[in-house]
Parts: sequence; structure tokens; C-alpha cells
Amino acid sequence: MAFSPALSRLIDAFRVLPGVGAKSAQRMAFHVLQRERDGGQYLAASITQALETVRHCSQCRMFAEQDVCDICQNDRRDATRVCVVESPADVMAIEQHTDFTGRYFVLMGRLSPIDGVGPEQLGLAILRERMAHDVQEVILAMGATVEGEATAQYIGELARQHNVGVTRIAHGVPVGGELEYVDAGTLSQAFSGRRPL
Amino acid sequence: MAFSPALSRLIDAFRVLPGVGAKSAQRMAFHVLQRERDGGQYLAASITQALETVRHCSQCRMFAEQDVCDICQNDRRDATRVCVVESPADVMAIEQHTDFTGRYFVLMGRLSPIDGVGPEQLGLAILRERMAHDVQEVILAMGATVEGEATAQYIGELARQHNVGVTRIAHGVPVGGELEYVDAGTLSQAFSGRRPL
Repeated sequence: MAFSPALSRLIDAFRVLPGVGAKSAQRMAFHVLQRERDGGQYLAASITQALETVRHCSQCRMFAEQDVCDICQNDRRDATRVCVVESPADVMAIEQHTDFTGRYFVLMGRLSPIDGVGPEQLGLAILRERMAHDVQEVILAMGATVEGEATAQYIGELARQHNVGVTRIAHGVPVGGELEYVDAGTLSQAFSGRRPL
Repeated sequence: MAFSPALSRLIDAFRVLPGVGAKSAQRMAFHVLQRERDGGQYLAASITQALETVRHCSQCRMFAEQDVCDICQNDRRDATRVCVVESPADVMAIEQHTDFTGRYFVLMGRLSPIDGVGPEQLGLAILRERMAHDVQEVILAMGATVEGEATAQYIGELARQHNVGVTRIAHGVPVGGELEYVDAGTLSQAFSGRRPL
């Protein structure tokens, strides 16, 4: 006994989404068929449309629908400073919560040789090209993970080869964080990164 | 600053899925665009196909691609006994774990007047029709929730009006469950439902 072929296929298809296992996929399939037929159509159409139109900005690799994204097209943004991040979501977060007015470079991942992600997969040739021309400061804003660290080291080295200044965003105790609840790694990082008042 | 229109729309579209909030929707959209383009196409095609072909069995309301589902078509299944469940997933669970050889009726929900779900939305007219003809025993297998309880009461009453026998699956301490960890409602149910050894 199994579900009908089209339903089985639908359940299977939902499992391509991250964080969706057998139970959630089944729940999503039932929901779409039973309660959200219009929503389901909207979802199918949106996926198809996005796959057709969304590509990477040729300068910063951000998701974009033209060859060059809005930020890279904007002449009022400082082209001499480039903030390097791992994902498009990071660009949104920095845009929302900081007053950074330079440009970005989105790695779409981080160095992870074991997963076959090397400098080429991260589009570092494009970044190198930009360093050779107008960039004067590279701000590294990777996550504080092992791979993020390795990626930051690698790009830092690249910047030094091109005589481009490099900074890294600060890591330490989060604002509003109680010292006693901060994990060991963060606390030790915060200590070694202490600055004169 | 926002994502490009097609990407924003895709993120928005993923939110029609149950249990998917803003963050998950964004993660799903990035994943599909960045790592699972083939999977995304497969998903879009599967949704479209399922919406076109999957409908409800005219006899039991199970999801099916023909007018009558496999179980209702199967002459070797006892048509005099009907197990009433809330969802298609319940049919699968009962098929896998019990030796029930009768047929089913899938409510696709439960009575919940506050959400506008009455007897009509649960297709009870079809069940009533079946009770008037070949059904001799109705087995109620709703969940042990307030709505499930109300639904069971309602269908039990319906069965009695048609002189059809009614049973309800047992509720009590789960097999392998330690008494001290069982919740109060279940334990009290188990006590009041005790049976002679």
C-alpha cells in the first residue's frame, strides 16, 4: 500500500528542500493538495520563474536578475571598500543593521576542500580582479566557524598580495550577552581581541 | 535594499508551506537557486502535476488519481467494515501496522466549527450514504484531541441512527510507556477504560 504515484512523487520532491524530512514532506504535500491549491500553484510558478531569471551579479555574485546587481550599479556606493560575506542573507543583514556604504562580494559558501569547495567555486578570480583595480580595503565578514576562519585567512593573504588593506569584523561577547552564559570559544576570543579603552 | 523581485517572490511563495517561516523560506530559496536547480525544477513540476491529477476517491475521500482509490476498488477488502480516520497519513499507518482488512473513510480534517469545518466539509454525506447501504461496523480512529473526540461523538451518533455498529480504537498507556511518565489525561483515560483480564 502506497500513496498514488503523483502524490508519492510530490512527497519525494519536497525532500529536496533543506531541513525537510519524510514527515514534513508528507505534511507539505497534504497541505498543498488539501488546503493551499492556489498557494501550491503560486509556489510552482515562483520556482520556475526564479530558476529562469535569477542569476549571479557578475561583479559581486549576489543573486540578481540583471548582469550587475543594484548595489554594484549604484555609483554612490564606495567601490574602494568591499565587504566579503558568505551568503546573500549576510548582505541583507549588514545593509539593515550597519551604515556600511561600500560594496560586497558574496562567496556563496566557504572554503571546504572536503566538500569540493575551493577558491574557484567561491569565484575568487573575480575578487582578485577587483583587488587588482579599484579596491583599497577588504572587510572580511565570514562566520566564526572553522571554515569561515580558513576562508578569511585565504582571502586575507590574497589581499596582502595585492597590497590591499584587510580588516575583519570583531568577534567577542554579543551585545546584551551575560559573561557567564557565553561559550568558552567566544570568551577566549573576546579576551585575546581586547582593545584599549 | 531588498532581494530581486523573482527571489523575493520565491521566498514569499515558500511561506505557503506549513511550518515554514521567514528564515526557512529564505534558506529554501537560496538552496534551490544555489545548489538544487534540478531539484527545484523537479519540485515545481511535481507540484503542478499533483495539483492536476490528484483528487479525492469518490467513496472514501482518500487522495487518488482515479475516481475510486485502490483500496475501495479492491474486492477482497471487507466493505462491511469502515475505519474512519482524520488524514491520509492515518490510512498509511493503519495499513502498515495493523491487519485491518476493511475499508476506510478519510475525513480530511475534524469537526471544528470555529474554523468553519462542519459535517459538510468532512464529506459526511458520503459516509451516511455508505452506512445506509453495505456498512455494518464503523471503527472510529480519530486522534484523542478535543476536536477528534467531538468528531467521534458525531459520527457515532450518525452510525446509531443507521443501526450500524460502532467501535472506537483504544486509548490508554502507550505500549512500552512507563506509568510515571504518562500524562494525566492519558492515565485517567486508561483507568476509566480498564478491561477484565
